[in-house]
Amino acid sequence: VPETPGRGRDLQSLIERARQGDPRAVARLVSLVEDGSGQLRELMTAIAPLAGKARVIGLTGAPGVGKSTLTSALLGAFRADGSRVGVLAVDPSSPFTGGALLGDRVRMQGHATDRDVFIRSMASRGHLGGLAAATGQAVRVLDAAGFEVILIETVGVGQAEVEIASLADSTLVLVAPGMGDAIQAAKAGILEIADLFVVNKADRDGAQQVVRDLRNMIALSDYDAAAWKPPIVTTVAVRDEGLEELVSRLARHAAWLHESGELERRRLARARDEVTAIALAVLRRRMGEPDGLAGQSRLGLLAQRVVDGELDPFSAADELLTTVTRNSSAGTGSG
Amino acid sequence: VPETPGRGRDLQSLIERARQGDPRAVARLVSLVEDGSGQLRELMTAIAPLAGKARVIGLTGAPGVGKSTLTSALLGAFRADGSRVGVLAVDPSSPFTGGALLGDRVRMQGHATDRDVFIRSMASRGHLGGLAAATGQAVRVLDAAGFEVILIETVGVGQAEVEIASLADSTLVLVAPGMGDAIQAAKAGILEIADLFVVNKADRDGAQQVVRDLRNMIALSDYDAAAWKPPIVTTVAVRDEGLEELVSRLARHAAWLHESGELERRRLARARDEVTAIALAVLRRRMGEPDGLAGQSRLGLLAQRVVDGELDPFSAADELLTTVTRNSSAGTGSG
Repeated sequence: VPETPGRGRDLQSLIERARQGDPRAVARLVSLVEDGSGQLRELMTAIAPLAGKARVIGLTGAPGVGKSTLTSALLGAFRADGSRVGVLAVDPSSPFTGGALLGDRVRMQGHATDRDVFIRSMASRGHLGGLAAATGQAVRVLDAAGFEVILIETVGVGQAEVEIASLADSTLVLVAPGMGDAIQAAKAGILEIADLFVVNKADRDGAQQVVRDLRNMIALSDYDAAAWKPPIVTTVAVRDEGLEELVSRLARHAAWLHESGELERRRLARARDEVTAIALAVLRRRMGEPDGLAGQSRLGLLAQRVVDGELDPFSAADELLTTVTRNSSAGTGSG
Repeated sequence: VPETPGRGRDLQSLIERARQGDPRAVARLVSLVEDGSGQLRELMTAIAPLAGKARVIGLTGAPGVGKSTLTSALLGAFRADGSRVGVLAVDPSSPFTGGALLGDRVRMQGHATDRDVFIRSMASRGHLGGLAAATGQAVRVLDAAGFEVILIETVGVGQAEVEIASLADSTLVLVAPGMGDAIQAAKAGILEIADLFVVNKADRDGAQQVVRDLRNMIALSDYDAAAWKPPIVTTVAVRDEGLEELVSRLARHAAWLHESGELERRRLARARDEVTAIALAVLRRRMGEPDGLAGQSRLGLLAQRVVDGELDPFSAADELLTTVTRNSSAGTGSG
């Protein structure tokens, strides 16, 4: 299928305008990602050489710890430094609307008139590979559009959140006093993903206890001598208290990522995951596609032959692999 | 690669001997499956037209409910009918030795001198696709070798056990009084997989309460009018009490499976799952294979190009799919 030259040129001009700081162009590009648009692949090809420069910082924690307030405060701090800042707010538990975070987004509209700030609640809307894949690609779009800092805000520390946190170069895990046994509950996943701990609402009773709990948890863990041990920063995000310390710790982590080779390692691992996820999702989708014969899928037809004893499952798997990879990405040919 | 005629002939003669009832030939074939032998594919191709006739019955339940005793009792009942019976004992929690069930196997050796009984504790030993795949293929081997009834015994009702239970045409879920809140704990998965409930150790206190609990659970569930509602059978397996009733209920379920078309539907679903699992496992393995260039995998090289901005992840996924499917199953060619 020949490329539609008009569409290609539109996309190029959209990318150009986004790089010049046109907020509507950036918004259009991120929507192309979210919608899993037919132009997504073309977009990714076009921006591949442009990305890879941004600092990507993740913020996660249970509801109520003050993530949005801290995100907003960090946004302000990086803007004061002159950086263009993108914010992606992701709630895996409400994939269709980005619901819970919509209010937060509105709250951050103090920055709404700032052309060098872009804020978006992510929803996955039929994106191949789900919300994590969509978020990863949105990060790449913002990166290519010249945003120097990208903040990814997620709720909780479940499997989906760990996946999204792994998109960041530096991940902040937020906790707050008076949240019950939130640390306890989160323990399993928390140490694996935290590059920095933030004890927010540090002016409240119990904050020092939370700091001690975290310190013990870190002390009891088996860190390599060469490994980064997550520091604990206390903040009162609503009053910007502790912000300077946090930004400086983040800078130190960024420096460590470069020097240790960990940044390269993380980005490689991320690219491996992304490529694998796309490849497997493409295959699964193709396997289930109708084969033009009475609406049966290729897989269904092969399974029938296995049941009928005409084919063994290994040969069926081979045929399936051959079939699903013959029709290449361009989407030409049928059956 | 031309087939080694000697090996091919060996396999054919092994299959022939297994079909004539030679227990050592059956054992050799099942071992080929467990070991994920290079001959596995050849074996599966050879037996594809021979399988599909056996009744496959799964037994599962928490440790201590009397699975092995009931398995042994059922084995006796089907043998009394003149059927050749195979037993596969699978413990997903000890994949390397089939440990916990080894003793049970020995206990069933009362049938050890019976050429028409085959008993094996399954272990997955490096089988592509894991224990469930290996068990499914062992079922097919026994089926092709002419065993009319195949009993699959598994411990527990976790995800792995549900997968193994799905290999059976009829699944018995065993419970027993005095097991604490075993039913409560198992509830989530239990109704999905149970075709029949067996309350074993029915001579003990609390057996009637267990029956009532199960009855309530079934009553509260949303069964289709046309669907099979799992009956509850009470047994004292050590004394063969309730065995006749159980065998007759199993026969009724087998008849329903045929008449309703559910047997065909289940076998198709099973074949789909098996073919998909093999295809994806083959791909994952190939993706991680070294590409001949300084030990880097294909995936690793592509990920590096994505990180370097030379390639977008979609194109990388395409290249990965092309590469991993170019080298076909025969294992010829490298890089």
